Formats: sequence, structure tokens, C-alpha cells
Amino acid sequence: MMSEYCFGIDVGGTTIKLGCFMTDGTLLEKWEIPTRLEEQGKYILSDAAGEVKRVIRERGLTNEQVCGVGLAVPGPVNDEGEASQAVNLHWGYKHLVRELGDMLNLPVCAANDANAAALGELWQGAGKGCRNMIMVTLGTGVGGGIIVNGKIVAGEHGAAGEIGHACVEPSETAVCNCGNHGCLEQMASATGIVRLARMELSGCEEKSLLRAQEVTAKHVFDAYKQQDALAGRVVEKFAQYLGNALSIYACVVDPGRIVIGGGVSKAGDVLIEPIRKYYERDAFPACKGTPIVLAELGNDAGIYGSAKLVLP
Amino acid sequence: MMSEYCFGIDVGGTTIKLGCFMTDGTLLEKWEIPTRLEEQGKYILSDAAGEVKRVIRERGLTNEQVCGVGLAVPGPVNDEGEASQAVNLHWGYKHLVRELGDMLNLPVCAANDANAAALGELWQGAGKGCRNMIMVTLGTGVGGGIIVNGKIVAGEHGAAGEIGHACVEPSETAVCNCGNHGCLEQMASATGIVRLARMELSGCEEKSLLRAQEVTAKHVFDAYKQQDALAGRVVEKFAQYLGNALSIYACVVDPGRIVIGGGVSKAGDVLIEPIRKYYERDAFPACKGTPIVLAELGNDAGIYGSAKLVLP
Repeated sequence: MMSEYCFGIDVGGTTIKLGCFMTDGTLLEKWEIPTRLEEQGKYILSDAAGEVKRVIRERGLTNEQVCGVGLAVPGPVNDEGEASQAVNLHWGYKHLVRELGDMLNLPVCAANDANAAALGELWQGAGKGCRNMIMVTLGTGVGGGIIVNGKIVAGEHGAAGEIGHACVEPSETAVCNCGNHGCLEQMASATGIVRLARMELSGCEEKSLLRAQEVTAKHVFDAYKQQDALAGRVVEKFAQYLGNALSIYACVVDPGRIVIGGGVSKAGDVLIEPIRKYYERDAFPACKGTPIVLAELGNDAGIYGSAKLVLP
Repeated sequence: MMSEYCFGIDVGGTTIKLGCFMTDGTLLEKWEIPTRLEEQGKYILSDAAGEVKRVIRERGLTNEQVCGVGLAVPGPVNDEGEASQAVNLHWGYKHLVRELGDMLNLPVCAANDANAAALGELWQGAGKGCRNMIMVTLGTGVGGGIIVNGKIVAGEHGAAGEIGHACVEPSETAVCNCGNHGCLEQMASATGIVRLARMELSGCEEKSLLRAQEVTAKHVFDAYKQQDALAGRVVEKFAQYLGNALSIYACVVDPGRIVIGGGVSKAGDVLIEPIRKYYERDAFPACKGTPIVLAELGNDAGIYGSAKLVLP
């Protein structure tokens, strides 16, 4: 009998998102359950496995009809499906593929959640039809995922795609969450944009829409859309850092597409334009013109990508 | 009968290097012939094919004993073995795998020469035992190759690994050979180091060993070894650019090793130390400590790597 179904599980610090898919990429249903962090997160995998078993049973499927189950977790995962740690889940080392595989008696694959999101966009989102892709996720932090020949690049320590922590400004003295300084995340995340805005605001007396309220990344882009000059300078600075960084990543892997996701990307096309300007300025000639596009799957990218992990 | 032999061909603008290998990596013989550039380089592939046939015949081998023939060329090569152009060989578009395959009636693979050199180092040189590697070649220019899971990353336009053209100094006004400005190549190649030295020399009156003669990259490192203060500042500047750039590439692919080759690397360990200092300063925590080592195969890296292309 043909395997026509697969499951994707995206474990976050608050909720576990699950999806049941056809192997052609059709999402049949998605749902979520709370992440139980107690006792070093020991219930997380069994809770997720229980959900998958329930849906297999409710749909009247046999295990033979299920290709496998993919798992995305917030932390480094190597090519063998081992997580060295996942702080937000209270996990130390875990052999994800073996543990979940034993519970389900199904083929299991695992990946870092940002990498899985990139694979999801490649499969059914903004990267469709592409083999090589860079995804950057602009949220509270800056995450990323690198896809080469249709596969996630995990790297030696599961740290490939940690492009938010490229040191783009070695002279920066403020410290990043990772302990370094001058990371892209300090310039291009939602919090980084607010930081840039505060510097700009405190450096001059100029009138600006941003003076009226507590500044958020959304406010910055809203003010930018209304031609606020100060917000414009903040966006230019953000775009210079991000566009230059993307041009550097591009000469490493030469992607067919660059996908921008995360909460900040809700600003829409107005975000892409300045990023593209600086990307084009700095990119290696063969990489100029590489499409920079908005992500399409939003918070579902992780379940799509983890499900895709188990497909050929 | 088992296939025990393979050939590597590394085509340069002046000579074609060839190597006959056992599939275990033993180099049985290597030799070279001149590169005939006349008539748009139309004799290059047939000259190389003739050499391979001659050696097969002289060694009394059958085609069944030969796994295949790998080809490295100076220009972008995609995953299908097509070269879009190779200016130094006077070539336009060429389907390398098909053309050479038809001449030899043997399996053929092709890659960019810098990428092939990286694969060669991974197979039998400084990257032995590694699956993920970044190689950077510091010569007249700066080349590079990225290996992920034991395979060359070619990229969408065959431009992956063009890490010499990362724009590391967007404010630089001098123009790089690629047409951009602020490329790593302008700071870290042999000519880039001379450029940095000239800037340092003209910016002060300080005594230095470098004032006595025409400056070369070798002179800079020789003077640095003799504690020349001005040469020391040049090396620091070079190492800051290169160490920072390597730390950025590392957070993209998270390599197990970083290999430094090319003429400049003849300076030896004295070169590695300052690069490592800045790499460690800027690297993402999980990537700190990644070994940075000197290449081992010298000019033979290309024949090793092209031969490896045809092996599983």
C-alpha cells in the first residue's frame, strides 16, 4: 500500500503545533496543544506522539499509510536527529529521532525549527520550485535556514543557518543574547529595529511620528509608509545591515531565492524594497537579481517543513 | 570487475594538470600539458581526453576499471556540469559533462576549480575526515569552496563559494575585479595585502622593513615575523577582515573545519594565528573553536578534487 500521509510537529516553548498532510503537500488538518515544560520537558515528545496516534486512529489509517513524522525543535539539531540542548523546552541532550521513533514505530526525522520553517517555505510556500534557498526570519530575534539541493544544511553542530548571529558590526559594544556583540539580530530583529529607532530619536530633536508613542518595529514601518523622515533613516539603516548581510550569505551558497519571514515581514513589500536596494548594491554579480520575497506560510511553516523532512 | 581507478583534470589558463588515482585516494601519477587557447579553446577538452585515453592504454586498463573522469575549470559550473562561461579559457557556454563524456565514453563530472580544490582537501588533504568544510584560497585573488555533507555546494548559478567577493567594506571606493567595491578579495588576497600595506606606508613616516623594497604579501609576512610594527598593523587589518568574514560564513554552513590555501598561505602558522583571533572574537558561540588549518595539497588540490567528483 502506498504511503500517502505524513505528519509535522513543531515544538515551541508555549505550544506544540501539529499538522497532518498528504505527501503532495495538502494540509488536511492542523491543531495545537500546550507544551508541558515540567520535569525537564519529559512529557513533550510523548504528548506529541499521543496526538499523532490519535489522529492516525481517528482517520482509520494504518502505519503503512504513513510515510513518517517530522519534528522541529527550538535548538540545534544535527544530521542524525540529535538535539544537543533546547533551553526553551528545558531539555539537555536528546536523541529525538530514536525517542520519538520508539514511541510511534514510524520513521522519524528531526530538525531545528528555523531550518524546518525554511524547508516548509521551499516545499509549499514562497520557495516553491526552488532547490537552493536562504530564509531569514525577522522576529523578536533573527533566525534563518539554509536549503541546498532541497535539503536543510544542519552543519557540524546543528548551527548552520544561525545567520542572525553573523557579526555584522564588530565595533558594536552592546551585547547580543548570544553573548557576542554586533550580531545582525541587534540590527534587524523587531527589538533591533526599536534599538536603531531609539538611537536615532535620542540623537536629534527632529519631529517624528515615532515620538508620540512607545516605539515598536510596526510603528517604525507605519511611520516609514507615511514618509516620516526619521523612520526612513531607521529603515535605511536596518536595510543596509540586512541587505549587505544577505549579499554575503548569497556568495556562500548562491541561492535561487531569498525568503523573508517572521513578524517584521508583516510590514509587506515596503520592507522588501530597501533590503533589495542594498542587496543589489553589494551582491556578487552572478547573484544580483536573486528574488527576495516574503514568506507565505506564516506560523505554519514549521509543520510544513517538519512533515517534508520525512519525504524523499 | 571492480572500478579501481579514476582521473582528475584541472584546467587552468596556462596548463592542464592531470592525475591518475586509485579510488582509495592514492595518486599514481600526475602530469601536465599546455592549455591551447586558440579557436575559443576548442582543443582543450579533446587534448585532455587524449591524455586520459593514452594513460588508460599505457596502463593496460579497460574502461570498466575506471570509475570516471572529473573535470575542474576556472569559471562557474552548475550541478548538471554545465559551464556558463570560462573567460580564461576563451569559452562561452559549454556542457562539460556531455562533451567530455562523449569523447571518453566514461562517466564524467565537472566543477568549478576552487570548489574542486576544496573537495580535494576534504578527500586527501587538510579536511580529511570532515563532512562540512569551508576552504578559502588566498592568491592573486580570493577563491573559495563550500562542502556540505561531503559534496560541493555549487549554487543556483555555480557561484556558491565565491566568498572572495563578499562585500565586507561597503564604504570602500576602490573597485574590485568583479566590478563591485569592498570585496574581501580587496583586503585579503596577495594584491589586497599589498594594497593595505601601501595605505599604511603612505599614511605615516614610521620606519619599517617594508620601505626598503617593492612590497609583496611575502615581504609583509616576513617583516611581521621580524616584529616590524607597521607590518604588524597590516597583518592585523588583513586578519580582522578575513577572521570576521570567516565567522560570518561559519554561521551560514557551520563547518567542521576551515582550510586556508593559496600562495599567501605559504606564510605558514604565523598567518593562522591572527585570523583565528578575530574569528574567535566574532564567531557564533557554537562555531567558536572550529579548527582553522593550512591547506596541504598545494597545486594538486584541483586534480584530487576533480577525481573525487566521480566517486560516491
